[in-house]
Amino acid sequence: MTSRDGYQWTATTGLRQGVPSISVISPSTNVLSTTEDWDVIVVGAGYSGLTASRDVCLAGLKVLLIEARDRIGGRSWSSNIGGYPFEMGGTWLSWGQPHIWREVSRYQMRSELEPSFDFSRGVNHFELRTSSQGSSIFTHLEEDALLASALQKFVDVDGAMGREIIPYPHDAFHNPAARQYDEMSALDRLNTLSQSLTPNERSVLESFILLCSCGTLETTSFFEFLHWWALCDYSYKGCLQHLISYKFKGGQSSFAIKFFREALATGRLSYAFNSPVQAINDHGDRVVLKTRDGREYSGARLISTIPLNVLNSVIFSPPLSPQRIAAASIGHVNQCVKVHAEVSSPDMRSWSGISYPFNKLAYAIGDGTTPAGNTHIVCFGGAHNHIQPEENIDETKKAVENMSPGNMDIKRLVFHNWCKDEFAKGAWFFSPPQLLSKTLDELRCRHGNVLFANSDWAVGWRSFIDGAIEEGTRAAVTVIEELRQPPVARSHL
Amino acid sequence: MTSRDGYQWTATTGLRQGVPSISVISPSTNVLSTTEDWDVIVVGAGYSGLTASRDVCLAGLKVLLIEARDRIGGRSWSSNIGGYPFEMGGTWLSWGQPHIWREVSRYQMRSELEPSFDFSRGVNHFELRTSSQGSSIFTHLEEDALLASALQKFVDVDGAMGREIIPYPHDAFHNPAARQYDEMSALDRLNTLSQSLTPNERSVLESFILLCSCGTLETTSFFEFLHWWALCDYSYKGCLQHLISYKFKGGQSSFAIKFFREALATGRLSYAFNSPVQAINDHGDRVVLKTRDGREYSGARLISTIPLNVLNSVIFSPPLSPQRIAAASIGHVNQCVKVHAEVSSPDMRSWSGISYPFNKLAYAIGDGTTPAGNTHIVCFGGAHNHIQPEENIDETKKAVENMSPGNMDIKRLVFHNWCKDEFAKGAWFFSPPQLLSKTLDELRCRHGNVLFANSDWAVGWRSFIDGAIEEGTRAAVTVIEELRQPPVARSHL
Repeated sequence: MTSRDGYQWTATTGLRQGVPSISVISPSTNVLSTTEDWDVIVVGAGYSGLTASRDVCLAGLKVLLIEARDRIGGRSWSSNIGGYPFEMGGTWLSWGQPHIWREVSRYQMRSELEPSFDFSRGVNHFELRTSSQGSSIFTHLEEDALLASALQKFVDVDGAMGREIIPYPHDAFHNPAARQYDEMSALDRLNTLSQSLTPNERSVLESFILLCSCGTLETTSFFEFLHWWALCDYSYKGCLQHLISYKFKGGQSSFAIKFFREALATGRLSYAFNSPVQAINDHGDRVVLKTRDGREYSGARLISTIPLNVLNSVIFSPPLSPQRIAAASIGHVNQCVKVHAEVSSPDMRSWSGISYPFNKLAYAIGDGTTPAGNTHIVCFGGAHNHIQPEENIDETKKAVENMSPGNMDIKRLVFHNWCKDEFAKGAWFFSPPQLLSKTLDELRCRHGNVLFANSDWAVGWRSFIDGAIEEGTRAAVTVIEELRQPPVARSHL
Repeated sequence: MTSRDGYQWTATTGLRQGVPSISVISPSTNVLSTTEDWDVIVVGAGYSGLTASRDVCLAGLKVLLIEARDRIGGRSWSSNIGGYPFEMGGTWLSWGQPHIWREVSRYQMRSELEPSFDFSRGVNHFELRTSSQGSSIFTHLEEDALLASALQKFVDVDGAMGREIIPYPHDAFHNPAARQYDEMSALDRLNTLSQSLTPNERSVLESFILLCSCGTLETTSFFEFLHWWALCDYSYKGCLQHLISYKFKGGQSSFAIKFFREALATGRLSYAFNSPVQAINDHGDRVVLKTRDGREYSGARLISTIPLNVLNSVIFSPPLSPQRIAAASIGHVNQCVKVHAEVSSPDMRSWSGISYPFNKLAYAIGDGTTPAGNTHIVCFGGAHNHIQPEENIDETKKAVENMSPGNMDIKRLVFHNWCKDEFAKGAWFFSPPQLLSKTLDELRCRHGNVLFANSDWAVGWRSFIDGAIEEGTRAAVTVIEELRQPPVARSHL
């Protein structure tokens, strides 16, 4: 099946919208009648919605899953082109991410992981470009040492590499002192270090920060970066392991489809794709959802997994709290541009590079070898030096080529423009200063019969698939508890 | 409520069997009739059994939970004495343990953790005693450096601190080269390092290994130690975080009871405590369980969470495979002696110590401050220099006092003798050489309508609560899949 989402470019086909993916669901609906009365309506078939739908179905309740797109996965899905998976959004995971790993384990997919990095052959180096003139070449060990040194200076606000400020990564405001760092941007913190970072340290550090937030240094909350660091075992090695090392051999969608199929197998899942939501009306006894094309569905509870940046595009009645509306209006800052390039040189498999700040893409690694024997390079850019990759494909190719001039003979480009995607309006959540300390609690609250579940306001691996599953689990537990049939009385209890 | 399990000693009461615990379930059964026909019988109310029972009940199936003891938790439970929890078995957890953390998160208990260590006041040192004469005093930083150095020498079989041999900790035999280390005992490995370890390194290393296995150096599989190391992020800091740092403020049983209560709230959980099992007969269409006192119960499936060391005490029909019987007959080697001592000095809160090899207890840390302002010290011994702590309480007190002569003014002792416990025959699983590489796959197999779920054969955090939940989850998924009502046909699917 081919999704409407995503773009692919090759020299022969030129730029085309839509890429093949197992995440596309066909037929696109199994709903026979809108008059059916569901226990729970779940809005959104990303990991939050898939987890919630599955758990609620398993508990014996009837679920209607409504999704605007033609596919599952939300901001995390893979396209499989000629037998090779390109991750359109969301790639890596690790066994240190508890909610996703519990599912990997439950679905017996532990041995389905493979590393992105392969330094066994080829150029086997790290290329740093801080201007369009020339490159500095480092070994990967030198790359690690440079980044580790820079990051340690950046995060060491307590003489304990952040461990005292965020002792419990899944309860990040446990120490109230952490809140002060949400007043600061990454740039504020960098400004305190201007005398202690070498120029190369500063370059790799800034591009690493921007790889995480895909905002600008001004719009990146320093607290949220510290939170990521704490989740990553307070070390650069941990960052590598958790953030960018291990992925599914078959692509993310090979995992997401398990949730959908399990829910479907209960016989209690109704679903309708291609169904953007216009309004959600909580009548007290029932919640009525209205699609843009005028269909109406009714359920006892509704779980909205609508991302923060899109929340205000849906009309809620009664209206959402002013605080939640304001948070959605501020939004998160991640404007990631993730571009996959298939390049002819097999030797680039062991290459990694930073081209910053001059280039339209900043960070890239060799991520695999395609069936044709070419190297798959994944490149990241963001709000700093932003591009819309499909608008000017030559500019996009130039940005890839600039990562390593002369070594990027591009055979194929694959990408999803998350920033222009009306159902995402950005990639993974990354907070600007103050957003979390002021509104995280509110974002996690329910609104009558409407519950909100999204990785954007998870407390653990917020922004990650793990956080989405955390949130889907939380919402499911709540509605199951509320809608469960009262137990049969047992006389002597 | 007071459990039959466990012992407590004070000067005024002397030694008494039985300690108070919220893990004791009253009334001890809610079964009205043995002729009821259950979907699933779960044997054992430890974390595997609790997880399986809960998940199966949530899925709408009827469960009978059968437990030999008067309480939930199996080898992991806490006694609450005067408002202070003593962990009788199983204490620590971390957010790097995915299955338990998913449950901590799901039950909203993220902020219920506290650290065992508190180095903020008091003696604040590590005391190493390698003979009954004298002590060497180190700072905790020196303690960490000593252990880290020794451990790194011990595990570094690949020049990569074990990362190449066990790249995927939850798929530990992923690299077949790992199997060779299951041929070796810890002693075999130590013997290759005799020239490179300092005497102090050797002492702390041996006692740390024995703290993990509670066997002897000869009976400890070197592979299994490497597996623990890999799970602990291949570092001593990771070992500290995952193995011995964070515990529930309210004790383990405050967590376990959540699983039980959630299952009960479905109205689909029947249970019978004080019901040791005599026989399990799979008739093909139904499994019939017979208790020692002659009651018989019937279910479509049976999930046995009986620990490896106890498996052969139950008569199975048809009989278990010769390989499984042989594995249970070999058994795991953990003969942990865990003794809690309340000592009068508040200054001992920041103390840790090793007294090895001469003493009957080898490893201890200050684990808390009791309501009386005394320090709670938790001490560990094992098969090396073994004691039965209730048999000679003066010998047990002497072993505690020997951890730090002159500083252990004992007010109270609390412990559970796992080795003489007929329903455990040992503490957490630790494998002798060859057991895992030869029989792990078989131990994980089903036997007709009987499934086996226990942390003893988990693939991830085997031996830990995390592994128990992993296993309970696995068994539940399987039986739910098999017993689920066929879905209602949907005409156009």
